[in-house]
Amino acid sequence: MELWFTEKQTPYLEFSCKVAATLHREKTPYQDLAVIDTFAYGRMLVLDGIVQTTVKDEFIYHEMITHVALNTHPAPREVLIIGGGDGGTLREVVKHPRVERATMVEIDERVIAASREYLPELSVAFDHPKANVVIDDGIKYVAGCRNQYDVIIIDSTDPVGPAQGLFRADFYRNTFEALKEDGLFVAQTESPLFDGELVRRIFSDVRSIFPVARLYITVIPTYPGGLWTFTMGSKRYDPCGIAFEDIPSYETRFYTPAVHRAAFVLPRFVEELLEAR
Amino acid sequence: MELWFTEKQTPYLEFSCKVAATLHREKTPYQDLAVIDTFAYGRMLVLDGIVQTTVKDEFIYHEMITHVALNTHPAPREVLIIGGGDGGTLREVVKHPRVERATMVEIDERVIAASREYLPELSVAFDHPKANVVIDDGIKYVAGCRNQYDVIIIDSTDPVGPAQGLFRADFYRNTFEALKEDGLFVAQTESPLFDGELVRRIFSDVRSIFPVARLYITVIPTYPGGLWTFTMGSKRYDPCGIAFEDIPSYETRFYTPAVHRAAFVLPRFVEELLEAR
Repeated sequence: MELWFTEKQTPYLEFSCKVAATLHREKTPYQDLAVIDTFAYGRMLVLDGIVQTTVKDEFIYHEMITHVALNTHPAPREVLIIGGGDGGTLREVVKHPRVERATMVEIDERVIAASREYLPELSVAFDHPKANVVIDDGIKYVAGCRNQYDVIIIDSTDPVGPAQGLFRADFYRNTFEALKEDGLFVAQTESPLFDGELVRRIFSDVRSIFPVARLYITVIPTYPGGLWTFTMGSKRYDPCGIAFEDIPSYETRFYTPAVHRAAFVLPRFVEELLEAR
Repeated sequence: MELWFTEKQTPYLEFSCKVAATLHREKTPYQDLAVIDTFAYGRMLVLDGIVQTTVKDEFIYHEMITHVALNTHPAPREVLIIGGGDGGTLREVVKHPRVERATMVEIDERVIAASREYLPELSVAFDHPKANVVIDDGIKYVAGCRNQYDVIIIDSTDPVGPAQGLFRADFYRNTFEALKEDGLFVAQTESPLFDGELVRRIFSDVRSIFPVARLYITVIPTYPGGLWTFTMGSKRYDPCGIAFEDIPSYETRFYTPAVHRAAFVLPRFVEELLEAR
């Protein structure tokens, strides 16, 4: 028997992987949670039928959502991660020598439990001395913070279901308030090929709230179309004007200072998308 | 009834698109040829079950295989395209103000015929005054050329079947001979995530034959993993040291001088792949 997992990436597009084993499956209070072992991408976390991360390619997403932001801030001591229950972003955040505390707010503790058990490469930092794991609704949590964080990382699922609110202007305004006076945030913000209007709208919202707004791109192999955007809103520091000599070095597999700079070079159609009204 | 096309990208990975209509299907002397209309990517050319190009995203591949090479050469007058029967690369080549003649050598004239009929966005340049379309085996054609071209573009299918020879060291040596004394070539050279060993071997072969060897990357949404490599071998000019002020401007949707430069910034794991022995 052959077992295949299929994700309906859009109503018109499917991605399928041959499955070696289904390691875990449960219905949590928030979502359908599965960890499967695939031949092409190794172990894979799947929420509501959508691939979140895989052992083979997770380093790209997690390094690119983390280090671009942390290295834009000269002293990212207090970091907040919203979502990111698999632990991959937390692992990257605590790696940074200047981070003192990384608070991760995940709504679904079952994601953390499944990652602890089946994704040791990702969940390795849950018990790190710098880590502070909170089970709570990220939207409410951020609304209750004032002037508290240097960097906030929104490591969310797609804008359907509980994560919808993480893509709205009022959430970005609360994020602004939760940041210190020179703080910045970054969020994964979907595909410019398949969700161009959403990418444009988010960028426009962030630009209306933060003095510095920047979009950068990378490749996420298991996301539809591969080409993926991240949006950064910053109160002071510009990710495109960094003196990399001052940045402490640490081990990465994808990110380098040159990759950081290159990620902000947008293809012409993405530039035009952001300029459209 | 729902009609879906599925490509087996690897034995373990599939990509599926919902199909609005099958526009064309034939068995040519070389391959199974189809043009289908899909909801996600528009019209799509499929050879032996593998997606070659789609109307929605073809600009990325065709601009990135063409303009990086053409703008690296200060006077790309005589250009040779091997393969590229859909016409997308030819369309980009004739667009360049300094190109005088673009010779395209395609082994399968049926691909050209199907593109003429069903892919007008791509096949628009077959009758362009600069275009010279030759039906022949590209490997033999290149073996018969000496000191003839400024730029050679290897726009091939994957290294299976007739295209296998286009990924071998003896073909790169013949390409060297076919180029003028300051010529250069570029080829699409597969995925660093799924074909790392092939990427490494090709780069090593090219480096052993050409004074300048460079790898660059981009995202090809419909290719497995999205992240894709192109390898350039050059007798004189370095694609990383260009004075872009001298380059004539023309319309593109993906490529810009900044995108050109950024494409050569390699993720750390790709850098390490190229350095491995």
